[in-house]
Amino acid sequence: MVKKVCVFIGSRANYSSIRAAMSAIDKNPSLELQIVVGSSAVLDKYGAVINLIEKDGFNIVRKSYMSIQGETPATMAKSTGLCMMDMSTIFDELKPDYVVVVGDRYEIMAPALAAAYMNIPLVHTMGGEVTGTIDESIRHAVTKLAHIHFPANKESADRIIRLGERQDMVFTVGCPRIDMVKQIMESPFENINQLCELFGGVGYEIDFDKPFLLVSQHPVTTEFVSARKQMAETLQAIEVLDMQTVMLWPNSDAGSDFISKAIRSYREKNPQNKIHLFKNLPMEVYITLMMKTACLIGNSSSGIREGEFIGTPCVNIGSRQAGRERGENVIDVDNDSKQIEDAVRKQISHGQYISKHIYGDGRAGEKIAEILAGLGKIDIQKRITY
Amino acid sequence: MVKKVCVFIGSRANYSSIRAAMSAIDKNPSLELQIVVGSSAVLDKYGAVINLIEKDGFNIVRKSYMSIQGETPATMAKSTGLCMMDMSTIFDELKPDYVVVVGDRYEIMAPALAAAYMNIPLVHTMGGEVTGTIDESIRHAVTKLAHIHFPANKESADRIIRLGERQDMVFTVGCPRIDMVKQIMESPFENINQLCELFGGVGYEIDFDKPFLLVSQHPVTTEFVSARKQMAETLQAIEVLDMQTVMLWPNSDAGSDFISKAIRSYREKNPQNKIHLFKNLPMEVYITLMMKTACLIGNSSSGIREGEFIGTPCVNIGSRQAGRERGENVIDVDNDSKQIEDAVRKQISHGQYISKHIYGDGRAGEKIAEILAGLGKIDIQKRITY
Amino acid sequence: MVKKVCVFIGSRANYSSIRAAMSAIDKNPSLELQIVVGSSAVLDKYGAVINLIEKDGFNIVRKSYMSIQGETPATMAKSTGLCMMDMSTIFDELKPDYVVVVGDRYEIMAPALAAAYMNIPLVHTMGGEVTGTIDESIRHAVTKLAHIHFPANKESADRIIRLGERQDMVFTVGCPRIDMVKQIMESPFENINQLCELFGGVGYEIDFDKPFLLVSQHPVTTEFVSARKQMAETLQAIEVLDMQTVMLWPNSDAGSDFISKAIRSYREKNPQNKIHLFKNLPMEVYITLMMKTACLIGNSSSGIREGEFIGTPCVNIGSRQAGRERGENVIDVDNDSKQIEDAVRKQISHGQYISKHIYGDGRAGEKIAEILAGLGKIDIQKRITY
Amino acid sequence: MVKKVCVFIGSRANYSSIRAAMSAIDKNPSLELQIVVGSSAVLDKYGAVINLIEKDGFNIVRKSYMSIQGETPATMAKSTGLCMMDMSTIFDELKPDYVVVVGDRYEIMAPALAAAYMNIPLVHTMGGEVTGTIDESIRHAVTKLAHIHFPANKESADRIIRLGERQDMVFTVGCPRIDMVKQIMESPFENINQLCELFGGVGYEIDFDKPFLLVSQHPVTTEFVSARKQMAETLQAIEVLDMQTVMLWPNSDAGSDFISKAIRSYREKNPQNKIHLFKNLPMEVYITLMMKTACLIGNSSSGIREGEFIGTPCVNIGSRQAGRERGENVIDVDNDSKQIEDAVRKQISHGQYISKHIYGDGRAGEKIAEILAGLGKIDIQKRITY
Repeated sequence: MVKKVCVFIGSRANYSSIRAAMSAIDKNPSLELQIVVGSSAVLDKYGAVINLIEKDGFNIVRKSYMSIQGETPATMAKSTGLCMMDMSTIFDELKPDYVVVVGDRYEIMAPALAAAYMNIPLVHTMGGEVTGTIDESIRHAVTKLAHIHFPANKESADRIIRLGERQDMVFTVGCPRIDMVKQIMESPFENINQLCELFGGVGYEIDFDKPFLLVSQHPVTTEFVSARKQMAETLQAIEVLDMQTVMLWPNSDAGSDFISKAIRSYREKNPQNKIHLFKNLPMEVYITLMMKTACLIGNSSSGIREGEFIGTPCVNIGSRQAGRERGENVIDVDNDSKQIEDAVRKQISHGQYISKHIYGDGRAGEKIAEILAGLGKIDIQKRITY
Repeated sequence: MVKKVCVFIGSRANYSSIRAAMSAIDKNPSLELQIVVGSSAVLDKYGAVINLIEKDGFNIVRKSYMSIQGETPATMAKSTGLCMMDMSTIFDELKPDYVVVVGDRYEIMAPALAAAYMNIPLVHTMGGEVTGTIDESIRHAVTKLAHIHFPANKESADRIIRLGERQDMVFTVGCPRIDMVKQIMESPFENINQLCELFGGVGYEIDFDKPFLLVSQHPVTTEFVSARKQMAETLQAIEVLDMQTVMLWPNSDAGSDFISKAIRSYREKNPQNKIHLFKNLPMEVYITLMMKTACLIGNSSSGIREGEFIGTPCVNIGSRQAGRERGENVIDVDNDSKQIEDAVRKQISHGQYISKHIYGDGRAGEKIAEILAGLGKIDIQKRITY
Repeated sequence: MVKKVCVFIGSRANYSSIRAAMSAIDKNPSLELQIVVGSSAVLDKYGAVINLIEKDGFNIVRKSYMSIQGETPATMAKSTGLCMMDMSTIFDELKPDYVVVVGDRYEIMAPALAAAYMNIPLVHTMGGEVTGTIDESIRHAVTKLAHIHFPANKESADRIIRLGERQDMVFTVGCPRIDMVKQIMESPFENINQLCELFGGVGYEIDFDKPFLLVSQHPVTTEFVSARKQMAETLQAIEVLDMQTVMLWPNSDAGSDFISKAIRSYREKNPQNKIHLFKNLPMEVYITLMMKTACLIGNSSSGIREGEFIGTPCVNIGSRQAGRERGENVIDVDNDSKQIEDAVRKQISHGQYISKHIYGDGRAGEKIAEILAGLGKIDIQKRITY
Repeated sequence: MVKKVCVFIGSRANYSSIRAAMSAIDKNPSLELQIVVGSSAVLDKYGAVINLIEKDGFNIVRKSYMSIQGETPATMAKSTGLCMMDMSTIFDELKPDYVVVVGDRYEIMAPALAAAYMNIPLVHTMGGEVTGTIDESIRHAVTKLAHIHFPANKESADRIIRLGERQDMVFTVGCPRIDMVKQIMESPFENINQLCELFGGVGYEIDFDKPFLLVSQHPVTTEFVSARKQMAETLQAIEVLDMQTVMLWPNSDAGSDFISKAIRSYREKNPQNKIHLFKNLPMEVYITLMMKTACLIGNSSSGIREGEFIGTPCVNIGSRQAGRERGENVIDVDNDSKQIEDAVRKQISHGQYISKHIYGDGRAGEKIAEILAGLGKIDIQKRITY
């Protein structure tokens, strides 16, 4: 009997973290893939991830418009409630055998809880990690709801087991995002020189034959009032470094509007800046940029995770990635323009690093599909092991 | 500065588990009590707990109608999403310094997540226990979201710490429900002989000067299709025992309609039965019944927890209380009429037990209020300890 | 090109009012039928209309659990909001060419508004009538949102046109409910003597070879506090008349719990009563009962509408059907046991009436399907005609 | 007894249309004002109307975050459902004696329906008018739900009565927006020359001593795909006219993102343009601009309504204001850059017009408060008059 695997995608990060597994599930004759998209992934404003997914040949079966405007912690909570209502209806219609949720963004609580309440085995990838913000609480709470765990590395697997989960339901497969990185590194995006023409965006025309910086900074939920100030520090460092810079708009977390405002206001005041802004870039382009950039700056997990595999010099700012296992390619600094500037100069002179593959060998997706296909009946009744 | 403590009550069990703490918070000059009521606690159908709360002299500041009819796992999830939406609005208006949630019923996820997402320190009582059903997952997930823990006993406290929580935020205070039990045992309900006149209900007129059974059985969420069958087994045992019986209607979990149906159908078919059904009884009456009953039968936690303190002989049926620490007063049996019958006969001949106070000494509420009043600024950023 | 016609069904009355049109749509090669079920029609408690629909061979494409417990005017409004959220998602997925809503119950505002906002031509049947309660406001408001009108009679059609609707979009087709009545009258339900065995229910065993009364009474929304009192008057009249009586449980409007309570309390106090209660009966059974009953009592529209076609002697109580066009078969009385009693006695001595077909000739469903199939592009922009 | 009057405000247009009545209600000793804010009025992105209201000295008692991102017709419907859920809770808490809704924007259906379902007398201002878009349907549907009507002019009052409303519940008071216009005209905003410094915005520095254009264009809901194209026509005309131009960002209707995009893209491509963009301006500033502008261009109702009172030369584009009664100051044109250009040139040479006060004499707010204070018990049961 074919088992239905329902994957929830709520953001572009979600998608790139699970795409390799989705492909493998889709190809596995014992499994049927059901894709449900929600949160910022359905919104044009955040790059219409939904279109990327379809362009990649996947069939989306349901979508949920659930993002309530306001982008305060209260609307984040209200949006999650709304998403949970939608998910209960969707799962009732789709009747999946597994629900898969990725990582730790706020909206994944909605499909996670709906699945758990509806007695559908819950699969969680990228659990057991340690970071800052509310993500830290969400990730471990989802672990306590999930039946099957696919952590990205050994350290995370150990942590999941210490949280009282059954050892036989914890499978260390590596990070599926690395699968795609590996693939892209084998054939990188070719037309990097036509990037601005191809993907629009606004601002300075980058010459990709010369060194450039890459910036990706997101709001830190529990400190959202200072999000604007933090972005201003980063922009100040970039101003001083005076290099051409590719920058991405922030994701849809509480506080993202503040970052966007900081960027807009900076551009109005510094019409001579060398920044080109993109709304969203296909992963293959982003990874290619990571392969070529002089330094990746910001607080995205990509510097730590994909960066380690690629060997990208990276300056990680602030608390957002606190606790996440990292390689030698990362220098951590505070939200301080001087520290940022100094670290970037150090990274530029160092150049590329050599990876130790701490986030997997590039076969995670394949392993996830195989394990799900092979699993017998799941005991829906969880029980802490101590 | 007075700190606002917002307590969420979603069911009658919730209320009796936290009432002693509510009283102590209300009396503490450093604390202001904000009561929010939702789920079955606002519904007449489940005994209008809201009226009890007001009759007890508390002031309710907000209520949420959130129970979506259907009583399937899907509507349970949808209801929780709806409750989460309401809670986000309510907390945004009330701006509490703490949000307190009790235990492990499905709806508490709504205030727990809303508080966590909104950076309000979350207080959890009765965490760290081990039981069956989805409650098991919910309880531990809430632990991973909560900032301050008030477990009922040492064993539970240890479990919370093993789950990676900071030891200095775990306070073993005992169960506040026992505070009230103690108080009631000192002056029990006097007019027990007028019970049927005073509290209505339907069925056989009980003579409380003669031995009687007490039955409280709820649906087991993850097995809801068999809820009706399970109740039929219990009713079969009661039929054979042929004693006068006080029975309570089930709570509002998925499956409760099935239990109600089993009861109604039994009554139609056995017009000569000796059962009197009550919709809901004030705790003082219920505890007095526990002090006097020949045997408490069912799967309510009251037999294990309050029963241990009172010394009530108890027959616990099925998986609902699996894993909960218990004293000598409990005999566990399967959903099987013969096993139930035999165990009840054994308990009747044994009579009252002597308590070892494993769920506290009756001062839990007081301790909770004192600790909340004394706490300094809470670090809203959680971090697993390993 | 085949046009997709999405029909929303929210109650058993809805269903029987549109079933003939559904069959005709389903058979029409130019039309595709999409059935969406919500409100009380998905609930077991109200007779699981959803199962009837499927048993009749229709395919349900979506359902919405939207009934929030509490059954007060506030939860009625909240439920409608919830239904509207669900409908927006459903219509976005189904992309219907028409949305059809029936009559005037509170929940139909949800699909009506969702369709109007989403630029989907809205079809309304049974508009233009005049009654009491909030239904009166809802019906005319839906008329102002609808693009295509199928009133049941000439008088209603005139009223719709006076409301400023385009004359060419108002089609007087008769009431589709009469189509089914006609069909059933040609071959009535045969096993009426086995009714209690076949359809369960509780209470007195009716002998259908002897005269019997038929009672169907619903709460009047804007007077819900007195719903219990009103039902008590009716029960008092029945007590005095001392005839065997078939009674139906009320629908799910605000106040229905009060009526149910009045019935339960009456039965407890009058164990010797001659009432048999059914939760819900298939329309074919109900119509057959209307053909045979000595008198139909209550405030259901069936007495006025179907009753006129069948010729059933009917006593209509209170304000619920005020303003609805009626034939000679109806005697109107207040909520007063004496008035009810007298009117029933008068009807019993009169016996059957002869119909003047004021609600159509039994071909309404067919006409609706033909007109929808034949319509060209609808001008989605409405404009009042004066 | 003081009567509680709850006013719902969902947009900045709503606010300026009812502010005069709010002031009068607030001052009336027989009335208590309860302000509830929702939809775009709570959002920073649309000018944080909520802050204006508080700055004006009003006390906001509740707010509803209800705008679901996506800005398609489907999310507009979903948002309205969400708002309706919130309103049911809010009205249940506030227990108003009247609920007041203004005009015809999509979100007002939420408070209107909630009030009607909850048996609260519904008051509607600015009903009976005729325009394009879905607003046309909404306005008349609200009339059919409302108990008390305050149309802005005689023509609208007649239309309401023809819709079957009781004549004694229709009060022609004029438009409360004109009350404020009158007040502002008596003491206009003084620092108009410092506008850009004071209110920020982006773009060309306007010299207010020289002639300037004023542009306010919103999406037309039922044609939202072409919203971008329509805005491009307007921008093209402005380009050719080559005058300095004050422009406002669009409101939050479905399609507003498309207009914003058209503006952003135009600015990127025409760095030499003479447009200054403001997010939102206080009414006193906007009216002062209307007094001084050479020509108001767009599809805002302000040109027709306030413009008639002020005498502003106005070019009204497209279908959005179709059917609204207008004075001589308006020239209607299609969404065509040439037509727009020609009409603007004609208006510039004409200059100011003289008003005939077709939208009231400036005492509407006062009259509304007096009437509400004086009304006896409202018959909650509506009944069409024919």
